[in-house]
Amino acid sequence: MAVNETERRAMTRALELAALGPRGVNPQVGAVILSPDGTVLSEGWHRGAGTPHAEVDALSKLAPGAAQGATAVVTLEPCNHTGRTGPCALALIDAGVARVVYALDDPGEVSGGGAERLRAAGVSVDAGEQARTARAVIDGWLTAQRLGRPHVTVKWAQSLDGRAAASDGTSQWITGPVARADVHRRRSLADAIAVGTGTVLADDPALTARDGATLYAHQPVPVVIGARSTPVDAAIRRHPHPPIFHATHDLSAVLGDLHERGIQSVFVEGGPTLASAFVAAGLADRVLVYLAPVLLGGDRLALTDVGVASIADAHRLTIDEWVPLGVDLLAVARPALGIESRAEPRTERASEPRTEARTEPRTEEGVA
Amino acid sequence: MAVNETERRAMTRALELAALGPRGVNPQVGAVILSPDGTVLSEGWHRGAGTPHAEVDALSKLAPGAAQGATAVVTLEPCNHTGRTGPCALALIDAGVARVVYALDDPGEVSGGGAERLRAAGVSVDAGEQARTARAVIDGWLTAQRLGRPHVTVKWAQSLDGRAAASDGTSQWITGPVARADVHRRRSLADAIAVGTGTVLADDPALTARDGATLYAHQPVPVVIGARSTPVDAAIRRHPHPPIFHATHDLSAVLGDLHERGIQSVFVEGGPTLASAFVAAGLADRVLVYLAPVLLGGDRLALTDVGVASIADAHRLTIDEWVPLGVDLLAVARPALGIESRAEPRTERASEPRTEARTEPRTEEGVA
Ligand SMILES: NC(=O)c1ccc[n+]([C@@H]2O[C@H](COP(=O)([O-])OP(=O)(O)OC[C@H]3O[C@@H](n4cnc5c(N)ncnc54)[C@H](OP(=O)(O)O)[C@@H]3O)[C@@H](O)[C@H]2O)c1
Ligand SMILES: NC(=O)c1ccc[n+]([C@@H]2O[C@H](COP(=O)([O-])OP(=O)(O)OC[C@H]3O[C@@H](n4cnc5c(N)ncnc54)[C@H](OP(=O)(O)O)[C@@H]3O)[C@@H](O)[C@H]2O)c1
Repeated sequence: MAVNETERRAMTRALELAALGPRGVNPQVGAVILSPDGTVLSEGWHRGAGTPHAEVDALSKLAPGAAQGATAVVTLEPCNHTGRTGPCALALIDAGVARVVYALDDPGEVSGGGAERLRAAGVSVDAGEQARTARAVIDGWLTAQRLGRPHVTVKWAQSLDGRAAASDGTSQWITGPVARADVHRRRSLADAIAVGTGTVLADDPALTARDGATLYAHQPVPVVIGARSTPVDAAIRRHPHPPIFHATHDLSAVLGDLHERGIQSVFVEGGPTLASAFVAAGLADRVLVYLAPVLLGGDRLALTDVGVASIADAHRLTIDEWVPLGVDLLAVARPALGIESRAEPRTERASEPRTEARTEPRTEEGVA
Repeated sequence: MAVNETERRAMTRALELAALGPRGVNPQVGAVILSPDGTVLSEGWHRGAGTPHAEVDALSKLAPGAAQGATAVVTLEPCNHTGRTGPCALALIDAGVARVVYALDDPGEVSGGGAERLRAAGVSVDAGEQARTARAVIDGWLTAQRLGRPHVTVKWAQSLDGRAAASDGTSQWITGPVARADVHRRRSLADAIAVGTGTVLADDPALTARDGATLYAHQPVPVVIGARSTPVDAAIRRHPHPPIFHATHDLSAVLGDLHERGIQSVFVEGGPTLASAFVAAGLADRVLVYLAPVLLGGDRLALTDVGVASIADAHRLTIDEWVPLGVDLLAVARPALGIESRAEPRTERASEPRTEARTEPRTEEGVA
C-alpha cells in the first residue's frame, strides 16, 4: 500500500517532533497517530534514555481502544526489544494499530526486527518515507552507532611549516580572525570539546563556542584528558556545562565513557600531545588543519609523534575540502581508505635497470 | 616624432634578435638599423659579456658612412659608459644615426643616460615602444639587477604537518607524480639549482630537469653548497653542466659569485638545513611548498630553524597562489611586505578589561 498524502504530511510533522527531543544515547524520534479517516489523534516524541519511546508517548495520550484501526507514522522503525520500556512493535499491535509508516530502518542489532514483527501480526507496514531527512536528523547518532563511540574531529592551527608556536611559546595571531571564527562555529556543532591538561595549564582556555562576544546557543561539554589536576580558578570551571575530567591517557576509555553519556561528537582542540595521540591511535575521524601563511621553524611542533616509523605507515588523508579563510587555509580531511593507493609498488623501483638507478634519486621526495 | 609602422615592425624583429643572445651578466638586446626610407640595413644582437653590444654589432655590418641619417631600433636604451666596448650612444652618433627608437630605459646607474647624450647630439629619440615585451624578455636580468644578486626560489615538499620524511628517513611518494612533474618544469626555468652537501650525500640526486624520461632543453647549472666533498662518482658529476661547488655557509657570498657568473635565478631544492638557512637569512624571494595530504610526525622536519624566537619575528608570507596538483597542494608564496600587517597591536590586548582577560585565552592560537 502506497504512502498517501495525509501520511506524508504526518511524517513531516513527526520529523519536527523528533527534533524536540535531546541528542543523546538514544536517537531522536517523533510519532503521529492518524485515525482511519486521516485525522491526527495524537503526537509524541522521545525525551531521552529512560523515558517512553515516541510511539508509546503518542499512544499514551489516547483513551483505551482509541487507536483501533489507526495508522502510526514514526520517524524510526518501531523497536522490537524490551529495554527500559517494552517493545514498541508490541505496544502498537496491542493498541490495535492497523498500519505503520516509518522513515528509517532501526540499525540496532537488538532493537531491529520491529517491522517484521508488525507484519507477522497482520499490520500493514511501509518503510522509507522521507528517509533522507530522517537520517539527517539523527546523523550524529547513526554515526556514533556505527563507530561504537562518538565521532572525533581533531583540530589544530599551524604555521605552513607545521609549528603551533614560536620557540618562546608565543603564538598570538598565527591564524587570522576568519579562521578563528570558523573554529568557534565548528565548536558549536559538537557535543563535546576535549583538550589535554597541558593546554589547560598553559592557556587556561574558556572552551566556549563564541560568535564574536556572544555565546552560541549550543555549547559543547568541556572534557579535560590527563592526570594533572585543573586549578580551582581555571576558566573552564566557569563553562556553562560542568567539565568532565578524565585522569587517563586511554583515549578509547574516554570515548567509551562519553558514548555512554550520549555524546555523539567530540571536537579535540589539542594541544599537540593530545592531537598526536588521537591521530596515532587511529581515532581521528576528521582532521581540521588551519594553515597560516607564516614560517616559524623551531621545536614547537603542531604534531609530535603519530606512530609513523617508516613512510609505508604514513597516515594518508583524503582532503574533502581546502577552505580559504582570509589569508589562511583550512584542510578538511579524513583518513584515506585503501592502503598505498597512490604509491607504485616498491618492487617496481628495485627492478629498474642499474644504470637508470644511478642517475635516479635514492628518495623521490628529496631532490632528483 | 611618433614611432611609425616600419619602426614598430623593426622593434618586433629586434626583440626576436635579442632572444638569440644568452642570458647572463649582460641583458639580451637586439637592434635593427633602418635607412631613411625604411629599408632594413642591418641587424645585430648581443652575444654576452665581452662581445659587442647589439647596436655596435649591427653597425659593424655596414660599410663606413652607410648609417648616415639612419634610424636605429634597439630593445634597450643605448648605453652611455665605456666598458669592454665604448658607449653605444657615442657609436651611434659617430655613425651619423639621425634617430633612435628603443623599448626600455637602461636601469643601470653607470650605463644609463644614453638617451640624453643622443638628444644632446641632435638625434631624435623615442622611448617605450613595445616596452612590456622587452621587459618580459629580460625579466630575470632586470630582477637580478634590482636585487644585486640572482632571484632565489626555495622549494621543499612536506607532509601536511611539516615533515620531509618519516622517522627512518624514508620519503618515497610523499607527494605524487603531478607535483613531481611540476618541480621538474620549474627547475627547467631556473639558471641554477642549488642543494646542500647533506642532500648530495644522502640522495645522490641527478639535479637535471626532466620531462618524464627526457631532459628539458634548458638545464639549470647544479650548485653544491657546504664544506663536505662530493664523491667522484656522484650523479651530479654527470649533469650536462659541470657543477659549481661552494665550500662555504656564506649564502650571500655564494649568490654574489653566481651573480658574477651571470646566473639570474637560483632554484634551491634543499635539504632542510639549506632551505632553512636561506629563509633565515631573508634570501628567499619565492617559497614553493608542496603539501602532501599525509601526517608523519617525528623529527625529520622540512624546515629546521629559521631564526624565529618569538611570534613577532615570524616570517610572514603572502600566498600568490594555492595550486592543486593531483591530491597535493602547492603554496606559491613570497615574503609579506609591511610588518605585522594583520596582527592587532599588542597594546590592544593589554588594555582589555581584566575580567574579560580571565575568560580569554593566554594565546590566541591555542584553545580559547
Ligand atoms: N596550535 C594549536 O592549535 C594549539 C591548540 C591547543 C594548544 N596549543 C598549545 O599547546 C601547548 C600545550 O601542549 P601540550 O602538548 O602539553 O598540550 P596537551 O596535548 O593539551 O596536553 C598534553 C597532556 O595531555 C595528557 N594526555 C592525555 N591523554 C594523553 C595521551 N593519550 N598521550 C599523552 N598525553 C596525554 C598528558 O597530561 P598528564 O601528564 O596530565 O597526564 C599530557 O601531558 C600550549 O602551549 C598551547 O598553547 C596549540
Ligand atoms: N622534502 C624535500 O623537499 C627534501 C629536499 C631535499 C632533501 N631532502 C632530504 O633532506 C635530507 C638532507 O638534509 P640536510 O639538512 O642534511 O641537507 P642539506 O640542507 O642539503 O645539507 C645540509 C648541509 O649544507 C651545508 N650548508 C651550506 N650552507 C649552509 C648554511 N648556510 N647553514 C648550514 N649548513 C649549510 C652544510 O654542510 P657542510 O657540513 O658540508 O658544510 C650542511 O650540513 C636528505 O635525507 C634528503 O632526502 C628533502
